[in-house]
Amino acid sequence: MPKLLCLGADYCLHAVPVQFSSPFLEGIAEHVYPGLPFISVSKGLELNTLRTMSQLIPQALNNPRQPFIALSGPSFALELMNKLPTAMVVASKDKKLANAAQQLLACNYLRISTSSDVIGVEVAGALKNVLAIAAGIVDGMNLGNNCKTALVAQGCSEIRWLATKMGAKPTTITGLSGIGDIMLTCFVNLSRNRTVGVRLGSGEQLDDILSSTNQVAEGVSTAGAVIALAQKYNVKMPVLTAVARIIDNELTPRKLFLN
Amino acid sequence: MPKLLCLGADYCLHAVPVQFSSPFLEGIAEHVYPGLPFISVSKGLELNTLRTMSQLIPQALNNPRQPFIALSGPSFALELMNKLPTAMVVASKDKKLANAAQQLLACNYLRISTSSDVIGVEVAGALKNVLAIAAGIVDGMNLGNNCKTALVAQGCSEIRWLATKMGAKPTTITGLSGIGDIMLTCFVNLSRNRTVGVRLGSGEQLDDILSSTNQVAEGVSTAGAVIALAQKYNVKMPVLTAVARIIDNELTPRKLFLN
Repeated sequence: MPKLLCLGADYCLHAVPVQFSSPFLEGIAEHVYPGLPFISVSKGLELNTLRTMSQLIPQALNNPRQPFIALSGPSFALELMNKLPTAMVVASKDKKLANAAQQLLACNYLRISTSSDVIGVEVAGALKNVLAIAAGIVDGMNLGNNCKTALVAQGCSEIRWLATKMGAKPTTITGLSGIGDIMLTCFVNLSRNRTVGVRLGSGEQLDDILSSTNQVAEGVSTAGAVIALAQKYNVKMPVLTAVARIIDNELTPRKLFLN
Repeated sequence: MPKLLCLGADYCLHAVPVQFSSPFLEGIAEHVYPGLPFISVSKGLELNTLRTMSQLIPQALNNPRQPFIALSGPSFALELMNKLPTAMVVASKDKKLANAAQQLLACNYLRISTSSDVIGVEVAGALKNVLAIAAGIVDGMNLGNNCKTALVAQGCSEIRWLATKMGAKPTTITGLSGIGDIMLTCFVNLSRNRTVGVRLGSGEQLDDILSSTNQVAEGVSTAGAVIALAQKYNVKMPVLTAVARIIDNELTPRKLFLN
């Protein structure tokens, strides 16, 4: 399952699922050069600790200065492989490193913009997967597109409220790596996360859904962190916490929407 | 073409296309009771004057105090008719009037929220139609969903930049009647405006497109106001002004995206 790719000898692309990242990285920490920049495409929050990848990676490697870049934005791999125009964001606290990653990744069909708002890019990317489950639930219940857009718009606000309390800039959430990625995931791509939602909405049990696939739907784990985040940062997030309660089997989609 | 409906004797629902509204209303002004609230569902800006409906209706009726409400939000008529859950916004400067319109329209499948940000709701509703043309152009050129979501996210920012300079609250643009409506129009519904974009993107000429339909695509007219608005309010809007230049035949979709 772990995916860790060397881009030349200069960068490491980290695509390990969030919940497996810490033990995996601890196991290889002694072999990692302390100056090697990690470009993370993993989107989620670690359950229990609520850590994002920019916190988790340096801690797991036992090196607070391990260079870190988050790569995010609306990007179907297949379209990128077909060289269709795509725009993404690299976020790093280190402006020079963000510029270097931009140079590394940009090409004539991939526009890369830089950001210093690492937490904004990370929180948007993580909670997007939870919102995709919500969108899938509406799809699975055949409640229509009016309902789905209202719910996704509300979810975007909830992500913005939370992210800004966590230190993000609101414009990161309303930009490419926020609503851009959310629109792609909720309206276009039948992603792993949205598929889980569709099956929940059509009445299947979560255990049955998860046991029938070997793909990781990050949103299922991240949903588990949502209620704790809402409490910790004192933010009302009715849509995202409802997904968490459905995942936890405290609520059924029918009860939520039809009562 | 004009659509003016009486809701009981207490409200008038105004669905006349924007560019026809002023002469139409001037013609009936003397028969309109000065206290009759107009609920406008027309979305656009009047060419040349750049007026929104909240400015245009009282002026055309020669009554600055004509009560006005904008009704907006992501709502396919067909889904509403099928009683699928829908959420919309009523916006009025008069809080009591907004509450009364909410009471009038809300029912168990239609949730209505109120807003005092009339200009925000109007500008979002108007420019959404221009952005839908842009989204359609990307569809018509088969540039993919990565490109389309990047472009729509950029368009949302441009609408927010402009609207806030015109006095709107940014949260109106990032809310239900802003990005909610934009998502529905750009990703789900093959609306009149998006259809115009698809045909422009596949190489048809605007004149041929417009002469082959008797439906009004408000975005085509509103696009004509975009360049003037960008200049007047000193806002950079590369996506929306590009649509205006394509509509004006100063630019082809191919030149814009592939050069």
